Amino acid sequence: MSKLVGRISEGRGRVLIAVDDPSLSLKDFESLVLRTKELVAGYKVGVPYLLSFGLDSIRDIIRRYEDTYFIADLKLADVDVVMSLTVRVARAGGFDGVIAHGFVGREGGLEGLHKVCMDLNMDLYVLVSMSHPGSLEIYDLVMDKVLALVEVLKPTGVVAPATRSNVIKYVRQRLGRHYIIISPGVGVQGAEFGSALCAGADFEIVGRAITKSEDVVRATKYVIKAQEDYVRSRKCVGD
Amino acid sequence: MSKLVGRISEGRGRVLIAVDDPSLSLKDFESLVLRTKELVAGYKVGVPYLLSFGLDSIRDIIRRYEDTYFIADLKLADVDVVMSLTVRVARAGGFDGVIAHGFVGREGGLEGLHKVCMDLNMDLYVLVSMSHPGSLEIYDLVMDKVLALVEVLKPTGVVAPATRSNVIKYVRQRLGRHYIIISPGVGVQGAEFGSALCAGADFEIVGRAITKSEDVVRATKYVIKAQEDYVRSRKCVGD
Repeated sequence: MSKLVGRISEGRGRVLIAVDDPSLSLKDFESLVLRTKELVAGYKVGVPYLLSFGLDSIRDIIRRYEDTYFIADLKLADVDVVMSLTVRVARAGGFDGVIAHGFVGREGGLEGLHKVCMDLNMDLYVLVSMSHPGSLEIYDLVMDKVLALVEVLKPTGVVAPATRSNVIKYVRQRLGRHYIIISPGVGVQGAEFGSALCAGADFEIVGRAITKSEDVVRATKYVIKAQEDYVRSRKCVGD
Repeated sequence: MSKLVGRISEGRGRVLIAVDDPSLSLKDFESLVLRTKELVAGYKVGVPYLLSFGLDSIRDIIRRYEDTYFIADLKLADVDVVMSLTVRVARAGGFDGVIAHGFVGREGGLEGLHKVCMDLNMDLYVLVSMSHPGSLEIYDLVMDKVLALVEVLKPTGVVAPATRSNVIKYVRQRLGRHYIIISPGVGVQGAEFGSALCAGADFEIVGRAITKSEDVVRATKYVIKAQEDYVRSRKCVGD
């Protein structure tokens, strides 16, 4: 079982806070973690943030909060040799999990990455569809093939968009309860807090609605309350 | 016209040296650039290298070789907001160009990235197919849609795999001479030096065959000679 699931069984909310924008200083990032780590399941750190500050600086923060859960949202999409090098760097940086794109395919791609992740005890999340409208143009046309690949590889979980709850429902129905579904797209990107959970996701990824807030604790509590209200007031997948 | 094309008109080879593996120290990276910059068109720096050393250190090297050409091979594949943040970081790091995946689609994806690249005077290369066998499983099934997107967006160029020269031929035929084609997959990945050029690519991306060599100057000259021999001895696209 992923350490991520353990985090919610300890009473934390089904939220992963996304940190992408380098205008959040390292000091503010650490303050965010310090103030919200008992409220949320973990943190997802994106490429612009990782590139801007470098893994050395971020590792120093992660090491001080080892009981927390950090995903490197690298959206890996390369040949296996290169992705494997990257994931080793991310693991050395203290990350517990990594996100890769399903569309790169198995042979010479995700298969090798998955093996390295298992060797490193690193959780792997495979993207199967994205939250922006452009995902409908190309990605979603091959989603069934990506899901078939997920069923063969058996990674820790998948990433599916909150902005299209029918996609999450479909993914949950197809994969069953064997995979964690994490979902971006709630909040500033447009989907209601709780809507992805209701459709079958396990965690919602929330970025700017928390990180751009004046009071991150209040914003986080607001999001968790909104999720609970949404799920309680509707008939949800799994009810 | 991209500065990259200018580099070959000044007599350099049609080679971009790929630097991915962080086992190449920064000192050796700088030595590689210093010793080969008059031989090759430029350098392509990959995610594991960028993450491991951080952009600050790499920017210091790039700044010392401003007449050279550096592509950040980030294989961007995210929503427009996040890709735009990343490309700003890469531009601040001194890079001349960036690579993004075509499959993310236009709306809320590549369209926004392309606009930011134009604002920043940053070359954009769009991946249309990859060099590993897994690319056939999913990516190549939607390549026509990716190429249609390229025709709408008009980026600087595209990335197509040397390991399947029929793909390069197809891309060149479809896009005409309006786009630079850069091609990974020659050397250690299996395709012969010069084979992608012969199929219609403008530049071949060469990594380990040069970077893992004892003598990088000799290895680079060997690759360029092999390219020229291949192209001269065969009937090539554009002859």
